[in-house]
Amino acid sequence: MSGKNRLIVLASRPKGEVGPENFRLVEAEIPEVGPGEVLVRNRFLSLDPYMRGRMDETKSYAAAQSLGEVMIGGTAGEVIESRNPKFAVGDPVIGMFGWQLYGKSDGSMLRKVDTTQVPLSAYLGCAGMPGVTAWYGLNRIVAPKTGETVVVSAASGAVGSVVGQLAKRKGCRVVGVAGGESKCRIVTGEYGFDACIDYKAGRLYEDLRAATPDGIDGCFENVGGEVFDAVLRRMNAFGRIAVCGLIAGYDGKAMPVHNFRSVLVNRLRIEGFIVAEHMNAWPEALRELGALVAAGELKYRETIAQGLENAPEAFIGLLKGRNIGKQLVKLDRE
Amino acid sequence: MSGKNRLIVLASRPKGEVGPENFRLVEAEIPEVGPGEVLVRNRFLSLDPYMRGRMDETKSYAAAQSLGEVMIGGTAGEVIESRNPKFAVGDPVIGMFGWQLYGKSDGSMLRKVDTTQVPLSAYLGCAGMPGVTAWYGLNRIVAPKTGETVVVSAASGAVGSVVGQLAKRKGCRVVGVAGGESKCRIVTGEYGFDACIDYKAGRLYEDLRAATPDGIDGCFENVGGEVFDAVLRRMNAFGRIAVCGLIAGYDGKAMPVHNFRSVLVNRLRIEGFIVAEHMNAWPEALRELGALVAAGELKYRETIAQGLENAPEAFIGLLKGRNIGKQLVKLDRE
Repeated sequence: MSGKNRLIVLASRPKGEVGPENFRLVEAEIPEVGPGEVLVRNRFLSLDPYMRGRMDETKSYAAAQSLGEVMIGGTAGEVIESRNPKFAVGDPVIGMFGWQLYGKSDGSMLRKVDTTQVPLSAYLGCAGMPGVTAWYGLNRIVAPKTGETVVVSAASGAVGSVVGQLAKRKGCRVVGVAGGESKCRIVTGEYGFDACIDYKAGRLYEDLRAATPDGIDGCFENVGGEVFDAVLRRMNAFGRIAVCGLIAGYDGKAMPVHNFRSVLVNRLRIEGFIVAEHMNAWPEALRELGALVAAGELKYRETIAQGLENAPEAFIGLLKGRNIGKQLVKLDRE
Repeated sequence: MSGKNRLIVLASRPKGEVGPENFRLVEAEIPEVGPGEVLVRNRFLSLDPYMRGRMDETKSYAAAQSLGEVMIGGTAGEVIESRNPKFAVGDPVIGMFGWQLYGKSDGSMLRKVDTTQVPLSAYLGCAGMPGVTAWYGLNRIVAPKTGETVVVSAASGAVGSVVGQLAKRKGCRVVGVAGGESKCRIVTGEYGFDACIDYKAGRLYEDLRAATPDGIDGCFENVGGEVFDAVLRRMNAFGRIAVCGLIAGYDGKAMPVHNFRSVLVNRLRIEGFIVAEHMNAWPEALRELGALVAAGELKYRETIAQGLENAPEAFIGLLKGRNIGKQLVKLDRE
């Protein structure tokens, strides 16, 4: 293999907001492939909010990322060398190789995918981890019935947009919350939500009330903070809330919940979850999501940064909500 | 029937804390018994925190108590007149006749009890609604396994003391939270909790940490506020929290939850519940609790106010935590 591998490591832990100084781009040798192993050239890197948690040293649901190590991340690429009979050169594969151009694997955490009907990049979005996250939280926690009202925060995002579309398919009234008019237009126009609240417009609770005349039965929470508090005020009896992310508090900002009393008054069930801990749900979810994407029935958008060196800036943008849909980094320039 | 009925009605809604002026004692005729009906002389009135919620006009889990109507409440008494073949004069019965000396019923919400082994008053406490509340929240929501750590707030109360004793019987490490040293002594000494934190001592989190060296797997929450926040910080992965009461916020005091992030980080499940909505669990719970009381294996305490006219003061004391164990009002003076 000619050339070098390039990777981005965690240079320092953020104090508050993430900055470019927290990352460092380094070069390394391309890994040698041993017996049973495969070498993958990554084409796309997935950027996801959970990575922010890994950058801190404090207790989170996963071990903190070590300083000096390659940043964690899902990747979509192509087998370029194989000493494993299960993989052939040219196979499109999804892995967790992190922020780098090449990855080596014994095949155990590598998934071969079919790109004839579903584009490779979609396997990092609605036909991959974010899609399964949406599927699991909606079906296994919120479990909405026809006619119920479901609210989704970060509705234009890779997860939220799938939650809303799946809930619509179940016959729910679906209300999104997103930042800014243009995102809201995509949420209602493209993804078919019944309504979308722009939380930046300064009338969060009033707008939410107007959009949920029958109250809220289910909530898929990606944000926390003020949005979550407004939702709590509108919850109906026996409502269910899947807590998938609390991005409002990711930079250590205080994020008090003021309307917790609603949990008692309305006998709510709130459940935090991490999709990687529910692997038994993945096959069914991936089958369903892949079929919907192939049939053009699940809409998605991608924001694609060009080149590994631009991953830090794209990630910072993601945390600030600058992306629309799934944030990816394209790792090759051809 | 000679004499008069006496009852306490809601005179006004509290603005903040409940005061004596919110109640009014009135006289009325003793109800006439029609075909199929029974007349009950109440011996004990149960005072419970949930009544505070009914006094407000704001949305709660049950309809607000109307002004001028008899205060709601569970009662234990004796049938003194019967035109219903299922009840005989002298039968000890549990009903929901409210804050009054007499009650009339068609028998549908009346439960005959056996007082040969379990005292009548206990059917308003650990062998009644508070006991079933403890049983349901612990068994159906917290569902602790042997060796797990369970925390119970308001641990010396009618519900909390049962939660802890049932959890001990399941082989859990049980830590109570109560207000004051003397309550804590009862919680560990009489009810057999492994430890009890005095939240008034000013070292809530430190004391809780010391008492839960392996973290917290289950929590039965009666209080909310600062205690709940301390518990959230100590929760283990996949912990369960049953929200039974939030007495810290009953007077409209702000009660922000600061550590909600723990729900995501630790994938917690939080569930609010009202035991009256789970009637299918009552028979099993009452059987188990009654047997434990009869066998002397479930300890309980009662604080008994004398005379209906003292019910308001006793209720105000209950909300301030002045009682120890089940707060009752004795309605006869013989």
